[in-house]
Amino acid sequence: MSAEILDKNKTIDLRKKHIGPSCKIFFSHDPIKIVQAKGQYMYDEKGQRYLDCINNVAHVGHCHPDVVKAGAQQMELLNTNSRFLHDNLVLYAQRLQATLPDKLSVCYFVNSGSEANDLALRLAQQYRGHKDIITLDNAYHGHVSSLIDISPYKFHQLSGVEQNPFVHVAPSPDVYRGKYRADHPDPATAYADEVKDIIDKIHKKGGKIAAFIAESLQSCGGQVIPPVGYFQQVAEHVRKAGGIFIADEVQVGFGRVGTHFWAFQLQGEDFVPDIVTMGKPIGNGHPMSCVVTTREVAEAFMSSGMEYFNTFGGNPVSCAIGLAVLDVIVKEDLQGNALRVGGHLINLLEKQKAKHPLIGDIRGRGLFVGVELVKDRLKLTPATAEAQEVIYQLKKDHILLSADGPHRNVLKFKPPMCFTMEDADLAVEKIDHILTELEDALGLKLPNRVTIENECSKRKVSAPKHQASSHICMQDKVFFH
Amino acid sequence: MSAEILDKNKTIDLRKKHIGPSCKIFFSHDPIKIVQAKGQYMYDEKGQRYLDCINNVAHVGHCHPDVVKAGAQQMELLNTNSRFLHDNLVLYAQRLQATLPDKLSVCYFVNSGSEANDLALRLAQQYRGHKDIITLDNAYHGHVSSLIDISPYKFHQLSGVEQNPFVHVAPSPDVYRGKYRADHPDPATAYADEVKDIIDKIHKKGGKIAAFIAESLQSCGGQVIPPVGYFQQVAEHVRKAGGIFIADEVQVGFGRVGTHFWAFQLQGEDFVPDIVTMGKPIGNGHPMSCVVTTREVAEAFMSSGMEYFNTFGGNPVSCAIGLAVLDVIVKEDLQGNALRVGGHLINLLEKQKAKHPLIGDIRGRGLFVGVELVKDRLKLTPATAEAQEVIYQLKKDHILLSADGPHRNVLKFKPPMCFTMEDADLAVEKIDHILTELEDALGLKLPNRVTIENECSKRKVSAPKHQASSHICMQDKVFFH
Repeated sequence: MSAEILDKNKTIDLRKKHIGPSCKIFFSHDPIKIVQAKGQYMYDEKGQRYLDCINNVAHVGHCHPDVVKAGAQQMELLNTNSRFLHDNLVLYAQRLQATLPDKLSVCYFVNSGSEANDLALRLAQQYRGHKDIITLDNAYHGHVSSLIDISPYKFHQLSGVEQNPFVHVAPSPDVYRGKYRADHPDPATAYADEVKDIIDKIHKKGGKIAAFIAESLQSCGGQVIPPVGYFQQVAEHVRKAGGIFIADEVQVGFGRVGTHFWAFQLQGEDFVPDIVTMGKPIGNGHPMSCVVTTREVAEAFMSSGMEYFNTFGGNPVSCAIGLAVLDVIVKEDLQGNALRVGGHLINLLEKQKAKHPLIGDIRGRGLFVGVELVKDRLKLTPATAEAQEVIYQLKKDHILLSADGPHRNVLKFKPPMCFTMEDADLAVEKIDHILTELEDALGLKLPNRVTIENECSKRKVSAPKHQASSHICMQDKVFFH
Repeated sequence: MSAEILDKNKTIDLRKKHIGPSCKIFFSHDPIKIVQAKGQYMYDEKGQRYLDCINNVAHVGHCHPDVVKAGAQQMELLNTNSRFLHDNLVLYAQRLQATLPDKLSVCYFVNSGSEANDLALRLAQQYRGHKDIITLDNAYHGHVSSLIDISPYKFHQLSGVEQNPFVHVAPSPDVYRGKYRADHPDPATAYADEVKDIIDKIHKKGGKIAAFIAESLQSCGGQVIPPVGYFQQVAEHVRKAGGIFIADEVQVGFGRVGTHFWAFQLQGEDFVPDIVTMGKPIGNGHPMSCVVTTREVAEAFMSSGMEYFNTFGGNPVSCAIGLAVLDVIVKEDLQGNALRVGGHLINLLEKQKAKHPLIGDIRGRGLFVGVELVKDRLKLTPATAEAQEVIYQLKKDHILLSADGPHRNVLKFKPPMCFTMEDADLAVEKIDHILTELEDALGLKLPNRVTIENECSKRKVSAPKHQASSHICMQDKVFFH
């Protein structure tokens, strides 16, 4: 198949005709047609190169030759289900296990992060027959029915839909904008106590908690990094009530955080979840994912007598690809690269924060970095339209970035792990330029608080010209999960 | 990666250690290690060839070179999500649409039959805000939570679990063993009226029906072929109540039935479902699937404002593979082959039925064929252990077949579509031999009814020696969905 067959307008027409209109496209007013990609770069039909700062699926770099080769060779040899013995399945499980604490030893291979999280809920609910689930505010855990129920990021979008009575939402442990902030003496305990309060309420109603589920670092929720010690305390409360702790690593696992292979490990060695779910980066784009749990949870699941069968999950091709991804992470020291380049990126962005009033917060670990834009550093007024403007301007500079979080005002860096120092320099240089222009147009200056607040109230009355003439369309929100 | 790396016992040990014990293996007492496959044949680590009569995923033949090539070439070029324009996505949607009635024009690409059926339920429930679902007895629609709720094949296995109050189970339209049989003057109407009765009951309770869902031919449910006209009448009742008709083609689509590309088309040209879900064969083993619906249903789904995003769904590699599968079906006339070889297979089996008292019913369309074994042709006593014995004996002859249905007594043929006349001859010859030996051991003879019934009552008192010494283990049921 050649790279481009149809004229771009024809592609757009056919897409309108045959693809579900709920499936949004990036930059819907002027979408990009990508025909090729390599490493951290994507190329459109005219050969224009884009720097990809967002694709956490193409983890070891787009179209990595080792991964392609492993997939192609195995496709030629055998691709069948896991009801036959195959070495790829068990070798991959063994390799994956070696990256995790010992007690997380039993794998279930599935096809997507959504299938993984759904299975995690089934494991948790079967474990002691409990039903209640605690999730975090702004969480996103997947697109199947059971996960929309536990994803406030999704179900808050629906009006008039009743929340599942077994689902309880705890505050997001966001120390920048959340209920307990950096100035709180012990935000970890304060946020964990909120979970304990919910458990108490569940018990009063006669319910029983099956699980607490959280991304190890909230991604769609706004690149939130929970305070150290929070997971330990939550796990203690949850386990005491007979529930289990599910760490969702679909977006943040596989070395992205730099110091550790798994993001939950940032909480310290004294924390081990009962279930870890994986997805996006695991196959560098190949549809696969995994749930890893303890022998105890796995045996409780088996005791129901119900078989678990997943047609494609754990097939020899998926496992060959998974093994190749692990190999490349080690061979090219991509975890180390994430630590070094991520550190450099955060340093550069911190310098920008000192310069740009629109930057409210820089937070990140390794190559998972958020830049929260605010119109007012005291009130934390989300600079949502400005974040969209940054994204659109960067597109003109051929840099792909996205904005997310409950207010869509957090610029998200989660590039392929081969991202370089120079890539970071370039992206930040362009952001600097765009923010300077935006702030000039808005009349925003640092650090006179009175000026900023006055500006803020002025803006409520009349929007700056810049915005009116801009192509920002708030209905065209750019999400990347 | 070489075909075999580990000693078979080591593979088994690692599997026990690291793979969820709920994930069953075929022939658990002496599992098969498959290292290679081609066409309708699989090969174990010693090079022993097996004839594959069951793998409806390897639709155009294991490791078909055209499919492998399309996947490998696209993997090298680009594999990203559907938020960018790409020709493979729209060309594949267009090609798929061309196989369907015009009004089924809008596609959603997902990763598995389970994701497809879950999305179908979401589409149906969003359509008019209705919640109730009618499913068929013995149905299997997938492994995620929402689908276990509508899969009696699964939830009947769980004791003490309450059935979802929005899910209603209609009798399976099985004219051999079901409520209305071949001797009924109008089983289609009788079964459809059962659905109408359920709708009336839902209304009396204040509920509203969102959807009726059924496989176009029940597969795990026992290779059931609904009487012609049943779907039309059900659709009329369901639509009148504001609900929609979901045809699950995950196991039976893509030309398998021989006369038509989709199994729902067996009901006649006057029947068109509102949603069709696809899976297993669509990518010849590559994890992909699709939901196709009408513009009306798609627009109602969009009106909620909630985006639908599936990370891997509709990526350029999956679509390249999907296109190659469609090409091969046409190029090699596999639908025609299914018709011819399936017809030959059914003829051969019908002759066996005239000879073997254990064969109660032969039913099938194209290369989707069921052989229901009974101990008594009048009482239809399921010959479950005997079906397992056939499967185990066939394994010794290096033929892979499975048994399914609510009593696990239906031998299921659903081979790769390149299955030949000679393959059919061989499989039936071996079955003939095994049944002869089994019937000799059981003392079963045709066609003296009195003899058979007497034999039957004898067997209740003392099991025949053959069974006691056999390696049949009823806990080791062999399912293949």
